[in-house]
Amino acid sequence: MEKTGHAQAEQQTDTLVWGKNPVTELLKSGDTVDTVYLADSLPQPVAGYYTALAKQCGAVVKRVPGHKLQKLCGTADHQGVAARAAQVHYAALEELLAAAEEKGQAPFLVLCDGVEDPHNLGAIIRSAYLCGAHGVVIPKRGGVGVTGTVMKSSAGAAARLPVARVTNLAQAIRTIKEHNVFVYCADLGGAPLARTDLSGPVALVLGSEGGGPGALTRKLCDAAVTLEMAPGQATGVDSYNVSVAAGILCYDVLRRRMGK
Amino acid sequence: MEKTGHAQAEQQTDTLVWGKNPVTELLKSGDTVDTVYLADSLPQPVAGYYTALAKQCGAVVKRVPGHKLQKLCGTADHQGVAARAAQVHYAALEELLAAAEEKGQAPFLVLCDGVEDPHNLGAIIRSAYLCGAHGVVIPKRGGVGVTGTVMKSSAGAAARLPVARVTNLAQAIRTIKEHNVFVYCADLGGAPLARTDLSGPVALVLGSEGGGPGALTRKLCDAAVTLEMAPGQATGVDSYNVSVAAGILCYDVLRRRMGK
Repeated sequence: MEKTGHAQAEQQTDTLVWGKNPVTELLKSGDTVDTVYLADSLPQPVAGYYTALAKQCGAVVKRVPGHKLQKLCGTADHQGVAARAAQVHYAALEELLAAAEEKGQAPFLVLCDGVEDPHNLGAIIRSAYLCGAHGVVIPKRGGVGVTGTVMKSSAGAAARLPVARVTNLAQAIRTIKEHNVFVYCADLGGAPLARTDLSGPVALVLGSEGGGPGALTRKLCDAAVTLEMAPGQATGVDSYNVSVAAGILCYDVLRRRMGK
Repeated sequence: MEKTGHAQAEQQTDTLVWGKNPVTELLKSGDTVDTVYLADSLPQPVAGYYTALAKQCGAVVKRVPGHKLQKLCGTADHQGVAARAAQVHYAALEELLAAAEEKGQAPFLVLCDGVEDPHNLGAIIRSAYLCGAHGVVIPKRGGVGVTGTVMKSSAGAAARLPVARVTNLAQAIRTIKEHNVFVYCADLGGAPLARTDLSGPVALVLGSEGGGPGALTRKLCDAAVTLEMAPGQATGVDSYNVSVAAGILCYDVLRRRMGK
């Protein structure tokens, strides 16, 4: 428990916001809202409005007595509404590589090139964490950030595993390669996973749900790896869900690292 | 393409519904609505209402001229709204086992014991299909059915792979065992996947997002299999996303069947 609390403290700072407009803005900002507090006295239509907004963000709603809300906010000026957000502190790419070195392990990174669905990004971070990756890299543009839904879908892994949000994913791939890490692109038309050796320093690049990895990304990667499909099944359904593909690949890296 | 069209024809019958109330009911029923047609002349608030409902179902919205809608419905009595639903024809469990026999393959089934998130069920059906499973079994109660969102998340696999919806999942497990299929339960505390041989006739049982497989299900399964995690990572985040776990397990079955 102590270790967990420490990890969270390193990556997150809690912010409390109160008042109708500030809470509405926060909920609409895509920030990582954990909890929305609604006073018992709040009229049902207003409570319903905030509950719907909270649900979209994956935030928990708590109904509380007015005096508790006043104590929480340190003011009576809360208008019956408050929200707690966990501001995600993104790590620098170098910190991810340093984390591997500190542990005396070969680097293992997961890069997302345009993953748009927060459930997918959350599941990818969760798998990366459980398989022993040292971090996840996402781009600032063209893909979802670590929102409340991502945090929830990651089952908390996004608060434990460093996530780097980089301006330029291509530059990140170049930097990773300079650290002698072999960068694989998960893509159709690559080498089958069964004939790919994912041992050693490795980075896995996953593309967007619709179009896979971008053209420049493909070009920069050292090699492409493709997940096998049963013969005859590829017609119409030509790829695995991106978070499933990430899970299968991460698990393969873990298996090799565990010597199995 | 022909093969695909045929498979869809086998499993789905299209239904067209028109008029405000029938379309509203259909959209709220959880049925597999593919497309909602809205007349150009429909007032914006009404169009917005149906667009929101359609979005919840994962249905596509098409704005069409009034005369096209009239032609589509075969009547002018459409009130500016129509919807096309694909009625899913669930298969019988026996058909899934027969499909394996017809292909001369050892049965490979995936059972979902209470999977609630339609994105997860869709991704599971997609992985099962791509890995060569003969079908997916879901319960009538305690879990999501094949809705429009499931269909969409499956990338169309739910229209190609037989899905059996059974009244009694325990009875289904007993029937499958009688066919000499070894039934594995994906669960914490089982044998590590690396030490589990998923070759031969096999069924994989996945549990709900929250609590894993039910107690009776666990008892009925021949064995439990657990996905390895990197040492020290299991604190706090103790399991993979259910669709990721299903993907890793299905892929392992495929790999063994392809002799790799």
